Amino acid sequence: MSTSLFTLLHRDASCGARLGSLNTLHGAIETPIFMPVGTNATVKAMTPDDLLAVNAQIILSNTYHLYLRPGHRLVEQLGGLHSFMNWHRPILTDSGGFQVFSLGELRKISEEGVRFQSHLDGSYHFLTPELSIGIQEALGADIIMCFDECPPATAEYDYVSRSLEMTTRWARRCKQAHRREGQQLFGIIQGGMHYDLRARSLEQIFEIGFDGYALGGLSVGEEKEQMYGVMEACAPLMPQDHPRYIMGIGAPQDLVEAVWHGYDMFDCVMPTRNARNGMLFTSQGRINIKAKIFEEDSGPLDPECGCHVCRNYSRAYLRHLYRAGEILASNLNTYHNLYYFLDLMRQMREAIKNDNLAGFRREFYAKQQIHHKI
Amino acid sequence: MSTSLFTLLHRDASCGARLGSLNTLHGAIETPIFMPVGTNATVKAMTPDDLLAVNAQIILSNTYHLYLRPGHRLVEQLGGLHSFMNWHRPILTDSGGFQVFSLGELRKISEEGVRFQSHLDGSYHFLTPELSIGIQEALGADIIMCFDECPPATAEYDYVSRSLEMTTRWARRCKQAHRREGQQLFGIIQGGMHYDLRARSLEQIFEIGFDGYALGGLSVGEEKEQMYGVMEACAPLMPQDHPRYIMGIGAPQDLVEAVWHGYDMFDCVMPTRNARNGMLFTSQGRINIKAKIFEEDSGPLDPECGCHVCRNYSRAYLRHLYRAGEILASNLNTYHNLYYFLDLMRQMREAIKNDNLAGFRREFYAKQQIHHKI
Ligand SMILES: [Zn+2]
Ligand SMILES: [Zn+2]
Repeated sequence: MSTSLFTLLHRDASCGARLGSLNTLHGAIETPIFMPVGTNATVKAMTPDDLLAVNAQIILSNTYHLYLRPGHRLVEQLGGLHSFMNWHRPILTDSGGFQVFSLGELRKISEEGVRFQSHLDGSYHFLTPELSIGIQEALGADIIMCFDECPPATAEYDYVSRSLEMTTRWARRCKQAHRREGQQLFGIIQGGMHYDLRARSLEQIFEIGFDGYALGGLSVGEEKEQMYGVMEACAPLMPQDHPRYIMGIGAPQDLVEAVWHGYDMFDCVMPTRNARNGMLFTSQGRINIKAKIFEEDSGPLDPECGCHVCRNYSRAYLRHLYRAGEILASNLNTYHNLYYFLDLMRQMREAIKNDNLAGFRREFYAKQQIHHKI
Repeated sequence: MSTSLFTLLHRDASCGARLGSLNTLHGAIETPIFMPVGTNATVKAMTPDDLLAVNAQIILSNTYHLYLRPGHRLVEQLGGLHSFMNWHRPILTDSGGFQVFSLGELRKISEEGVRFQSHLDGSYHFLTPELSIGIQEALGADIIMCFDECPPATAEYDYVSRSLEMTTRWARRCKQAHRREGQQLFGIIQGGMHYDLRARSLEQIFEIGFDGYALGGLSVGEEKEQMYGVMEACAPLMPQDHPRYIMGIGAPQDLVEAVWHGYDMFDCVMPTRNARNGMLFTSQGRINIKAKIFEEDSGPLDPECGCHVCRNYSRAYLRHLYRAGEILASNLNTYHNLYYFLDLMRQMREAIKNDNLAGFRREFYAKQQIHHKI
């Protein structure tokens, strides 16, 4: 854990943005990168071949969900998560912390861990830092996360302060428990919207030492300005020689802002979940494919997009599939949205290489604003 | 319509089975063949690339559904059904008759046509032989079907007798109305489970003259023995130099029996619909992927199947996806089931080539029986 698997390749002269490469047991990934979310050992509505086709380099899967169903021991027995889901590129698993707090019922937090009821069948479980690491080792992801407490955006200063101290103690226990060779363990920084608490958490987590560092507790209901404020305040304090991950973001604009400030890794259900609801991201802003105006529209979803969906199907057909409740609607919509997100990251990597993320960002906003009423 | 686009390539010496080739505007298809059903201009849970990968040569789409939504004029305006759904191999459309009788509400049949209410929004429609042909011409399928009345299995002899006479008059009107160059029009034989009525319908429909001939009104609730009886009774009366299609069948066993008797084309929702319910066809019989016995089963769905699903996923993973309600379950299950049906047809074509359908049929039953309790 002393030598970083992360290589910083270039820094954009116009801002804090970084181009990097992160080595894992399943190959290297180029950063900045967006990770599609595969909650139940599948990225919803996508085949592994689809994921390769949209150039997904790494996906995220959820420890909480896989622990409850089908169970991490079963996944381990079947050869681990990569083999189980037939995805042979890198995987990152979260710690289960976020879901315990957002989905678990009747949860009771103590220094030892969190007792909660399954949202599936009401069964009782007790998740500790050690168990979270054990589950993640059994699943066998390339990158795993420390078990942390993620307080809601509404939490009081004192609560957040005490909570981040416990998250630090839990992080120490996670590092202590972690055994699996070659698997990287990332630490998580909490502290809510309070810059001084973020700084304290940062210092404590760095002192323990991890393979990468993540900002947790963002995109939990706060205003965009607050989120961007935390990103900006933390950026100068983050280490240069390790990957920097912001968990659970975000919208395209959030990704542009985060990359601008020098963050490297992101994940969010937005492209996949919105796709299933007919909400599609385009170079000219978001559109809702249900809308009547697309009824006879023979044009592609996004004229600037080079994806398989935009090259082969009309908006009219996509609208028809959505209205008919066809499964293919979810597949094609998800395909395009993920392509859009991953291509946005590729474009940003290209811009950083040319020291031109500032120009890219200006153009991004210009396009989205001009057309944002579509 | 005088020269058939069908070429009879070989007859199995051991039975009535035939090997043939049918030319269409979108290429030739080898018969006997099974046509996956793409009701709403999509084969449920499959992409066009998936259909190519399972070797679908031709698909069927439903006039009734496309007429109601999105409307045949819209499909025409968008370049026709092939372009609309991005499927560039042959398509056959049914006439809408079967759905009007099974889905339409408050239907009223007259010599002129059928008045019914849409099952989608209750709107009133009046479907005639001329309109059915007009819709199918607008959709632009390679092969279209005459508009017929399909009485239920419980219909009285006298009703079936009068009904088939009207179906004959409607068939004449269909042929009269049909204008589209290169598009083939097939006639439909009715007559229920009564051999004399089937013979009369056959004679009348042949006399009009079509590019191919279909048995309608099977798989409408009768016993398997009745269905096989009608197949057998009609087979010697069917023309040799045109394709013979049995509409709406069937289970793998039904296909083996029908091919044995000399029929060439089939369609059924069974492989696709059952797949979405977790019911999967294998070389050793049907299995329900939900079953607890597959919980830790690391083996392939069907050890004898060469499909992408059987080569890359375990029964345990497929069970997990199904239980988690994941869209990928529908995709992978449908993919395998269609591969199974289409590969069954391929194996039968191979057996016919070798004058060995008898041997193939014996082996088929032996395998299915030995393992049919799985
Ligand atoms: Zn696209
Ligand atoms: Zn298979």
